[in-house]
Amino acid sequence: MPITLANSNYGKSRVRVVKITRHADRHDLAELTVNIQFEGAFDAVHLSGDNTSVLPTDTMKNTVNALAKSWSGEQIEDFGCQLTDHFLRDNPQLSRVRIKIAQTEWTRLAQHAFTGGSDEKRTTQIIATRAAVGIESGIENLIVLKSAGSRFQGYKKDRYTTLKETTDRIFATAITATWSYRTPQAAFGPCWRQARAAILKTFIERDSPSVQHTAYAMGEAVLQAVEDISEIRLSLPNKHCLLIDMAPFGLDNPNEIFVPTDEPHGLIEVSLQRT
Amino acid sequence: MPITLANSNYGKSRVRVVKITRHADRHDLAELTVNIQFEGAFDAVHLSGDNTSVLPTDTMKNTVNALAKSWSGEQIEDFGCQLTDHFLRDNPQLSRVRIKIAQTEWTRLAQHAFTGGSDEKRTTQIIATRAAVGIESGIENLIVLKSAGSRFQGYKKDRYTTLKETTDRIFATAITATWSYRTPQAAFGPCWRQARAAILKTFIERDSPSVQHTAYAMGEAVLQAVEDISEIRLSLPNKHCLLIDMAPFGLDNPNEIFVPTDEPHGLIEVSLQRT
Amino acid sequence: MPITLANSNYGKSRVRVVKITRHADRHDLAELTVNIQFEGAFDAVHLSGDNTSVLPTDTMKNTVNALAKSWSGEQIEDFGCQLTDHFLRDNPQLSRVRIKIAQTEWTRLAQHAFTGGSDEKRTTQIIATRAAVGIESGIENLIVLKSAGSRFQGYKKDRYTTLKETTDRIFATAITATWSYRTPQAAFGPCWRQARAAILKTFIERDSPSVQHTAYAMGEAVLQAVEDISEIRLSLPNKHCLLIDMAPFGLDNPNEIFVPTDEPHGLIEVSLQRT
Amino acid sequence: MPITLANSNYGKSRVRVVKITRHADRHDLAELTVNIQFEGAFDAVHLSGDNTSVLPTDTMKNTVNALAKSWSGEQIEDFGCQLTDHFLRDNPQLSRVRIKIAQTEWTRLAQHAFTGGSDEKRTTQIIATRAAVGIESGIENLIVLKSAGSRFQGYKKDRYTTLKETTDRIFATAITATWSYRTPQAAFGPCWRQARAAILKTFIERDSPSVQHTAYAMGEAVLQAVEDISEIRLSLPNKHCLLIDMAPFGLDNPNEIFVPTDEPHGLIEVSLQRT
Repeated sequence: MPITLANSNYGKSRVRVVKITRHADRHDLAELTVNIQFEGAFDAVHLSGDNTSVLPTDTMKNTVNALAKSWSGEQIEDFGCQLTDHFLRDNPQLSRVRIKIAQTEWTRLAQHAFTGGSDEKRTTQIIATRAAVGIESGIENLIVLKSAGSRFQGYKKDRYTTLKETTDRIFATAITATWSYRTPQAAFGPCWRQARAAILKTFIERDSPSVQHTAYAMGEAVLQAVEDISEIRLSLPNKHCLLIDMAPFGLDNPNEIFVPTDEPHGLIEVSLQRT
Repeated sequence: MPITLANSNYGKSRVRVVKITRHADRHDLAELTVNIQFEGAFDAVHLSGDNTSVLPTDTMKNTVNALAKSWSGEQIEDFGCQLTDHFLRDNPQLSRVRIKIAQTEWTRLAQHAFTGGSDEKRTTQIIATRAAVGIESGIENLIVLKSAGSRFQGYKKDRYTTLKETTDRIFATAITATWSYRTPQAAFGPCWRQARAAILKTFIERDSPSVQHTAYAMGEAVLQAVEDISEIRLSLPNKHCLLIDMAPFGLDNPNEIFVPTDEPHGLIEVSLQRT
Repeated sequence: MPITLANSNYGKSRVRVVKITRHADRHDLAELTVNIQFEGAFDAVHLSGDNTSVLPTDTMKNTVNALAKSWSGEQIEDFGCQLTDHFLRDNPQLSRVRIKIAQTEWTRLAQHAFTGGSDEKRTTQIIATRAAVGIESGIENLIVLKSAGSRFQGYKKDRYTTLKETTDRIFATAITATWSYRTPQAAFGPCWRQARAAILKTFIERDSPSVQHTAYAMGEAVLQAVEDISEIRLSLPNKHCLLIDMAPFGLDNPNEIFVPTDEPHGLIEVSLQRT
Repeated sequence: MPITLANSNYGKSRVRVVKITRHADRHDLAELTVNIQFEGAFDAVHLSGDNTSVLPTDTMKNTVNALAKSWSGEQIEDFGCQLTDHFLRDNPQLSRVRIKIAQTEWTRLAQHAFTGGSDEKRTTQIIATRAAVGIESGIENLIVLKSAGSRFQGYKKDRYTTLKETTDRIFATAITATWSYRTPQAAFGPCWRQARAAILKTFIERDSPSVQHTAYAMGEAVLQAVEDISEIRLSLPNKHCLLIDMAPFGLDNPNEIFVPTDEPHGLIEVSLQRT
């Protein structure tokens, strides 16, 4: 019995993009993960290795980035339709385009600062011997992002350095903080809420010349706010949002369209104590 | 050169427990994941296979459950100290006990209903051909739990049925909903918010004789609330919280202490349309 | 426009089961994850809350366990058909049953010992100051299981102990080992292979009175086999396979059918050094 | 009480790199994930925002890539020491460097083809009604990579296309295949093994002008090899290994050093049937 191609499709999955819309009084933030799937006249690709009808999946990704710039940043349904319109118009070989978009929910903290839904935990660790009890409490995975007030300049450069200095970058991280109580009789609930508030206030209000500087400032703010905390450790991954180079598409990108990446990531750790 | 045991420890990781504290006017909810680690005089276990000093890690888990009952349900630091006190008091072979607790953040929706932090997404899918455009939008991973108003009774039993009927169980799920718009000109933002509100209102207010019945009611509420939605599909995993049998410890457990489990889980799917 | 139920289904997902088939000269091992989905005459469940047609998903899970006993342990397709036959025969309300099974690949190491596919890594850590370099290498996530030669007896019991002593249990773990080299000029490749072989040989050949005892024996074997290793740390989660109580189904279960669980799990850590 | 900086460190985590070493008769493959951590004189960064001592974590990543080129591709311990030597030599502000490397285990299939450890599953799905039984079996997550015999040329370009044509790329994927049996009496075990062998043989031996072409060829090979299979579906993510541009470091990179990425990824799906 002869063998035939019954169906085929191809596309790009997990295209991630962040769009910052810069209003006079606030920034809006949209973080999307986009999947694209094409169906159409692709038999020759499969059967004879003729690629002339294949728009590369890398181009699909570039198109998401390019069209994110003209999108309003508001309804993901509109963005999806702009993508299907674009692909159908330019690609007569297509019979069907499917776009899936998932938008991460970010909650506004301030004009330019947001917190991500996600899986924050309140934590504690008790280490007890017959002689003593030590109590360390903290926060795990408090996800935050600010789209203003962060820069990175004046750093050391060597022959492998390609990073460009920036006066305006996205600062996104997932804060883990752990602090030690001076006494097992601390008011754990209020202390925890005060420490968390001090961390967030620092993130929102303080300009950041580096993640290191902000991490130290967070620790200092907690120690100043909560008497019963004797020391604190903070661990801040730098969840990079990379500015996309749109020059190849004939577009500028004045800090609007970014690709968020999970790996590699920077990791900044600091501990502070009273002396 | 002789070989020696330099250090050892053992314990139980990822002990999960949910405690419902039943006040007259509301329920409080605490969901914890506990890790326990013992250090002490355990050389004989390693060297000669003599287990007499080993409290089984299964007993550590049982102890977390038993002590969760007398805990106030408030500060996790207090619960950790109650555990270290208990283990040190009853186990002279221990030199050190370490307890780690991570508390999942639940936000109150109503007297007996909560929503979990987590990773909710707003979603859309556009399928476009040269003839037509179809738009499906929805919600992914809206995590909710109610500790009242859910029962499961009167079901079919066969020779393999061991489940007990209940008039009062925990109903926890991660809602995925997908609906179709009648028109590509719908007001996507307001429609999405109305649909989400209708789903939550149904979850909170309607008594649940089964997940199936609640899933249908959610779909019906969305179709009633949003004219421009023509059909809806809901997928509700039943994230079981199993009542712990405390009779072996000489304790009763009137719907207070539960173990949440990820696998296996029930899965209920339903679709509704206008006809 | 009236609203109608268009489709519905329900079932149980992620039902896990391990079957050991005991031949005279060897054990065979099958580890399955099963998903079950029912379609049929369930409108009353959704519309009026009448559960009389609903076989609980908990019963589906019990049925997988019970039928695993009579299954040959060979082709998963046969097991799937036995399940669909059973459910269709006993449940006239069903129009369609779907069973999905995924079988984990285990590779035989010996008569009663296996290694899991999985994500094993070779690891190293270099810590260098201007004064010294320390090199620690190891193995991460070496997954193994033995179905004979493991027991757990004679341990301490208290009022919360419900675990039963056993002379024959499944021992499953994911080994992480880290050792220190005496010199930065060690033959890293051969040392790594000798250390790994010593760990596996100990796991396969030595009877295990506890995970602790086996962990120590593994460390001892590595130090005896590889001169250039000065100390070693092992971390062994006890990935419990719980014997299923089949008495409620009128069946015995002589160490044949188990449920593997990920949480909670025991965790055993030990370090050994030359002195 | 004054507050002081007790400790600090920073670095780059999850730097991924693949090195292909091209011997006359075979390729060798090393896939590493590297974590780098610096300690030293960094107080000014934290306290005054002076970044002059901070080598960017992006430069750490570039250094891993650059030094991967001169590394032998053999012992990860040697690579780690080359990295610590480099960083200590060039950075007097450092007191300590820590490098962690995890190497993914790849097993050779052929001269230029490998299979990844990982979590392959044998799968089946039974759909049964009172009238008929359909059996679909398959493979999930069979991870393979070939470092020769794959090209991508002659594809459609538009204004957003930046991808360069290549006659020699890495082809890495995680194969999911699902096939339908013509009869419920097929010899499931032998059929499964023959189908898997046909897929692997095609991957290893056939030159690949596109993932699409290879996916079709795999399906064709299975249908030719196994009479009792009537149709087959294949899903192949294109797990891109991107060639790293080393020109900024004054190095060439003749298809030796790559960065493997998980997102975004291409996704190619195809189904074939007998007619």
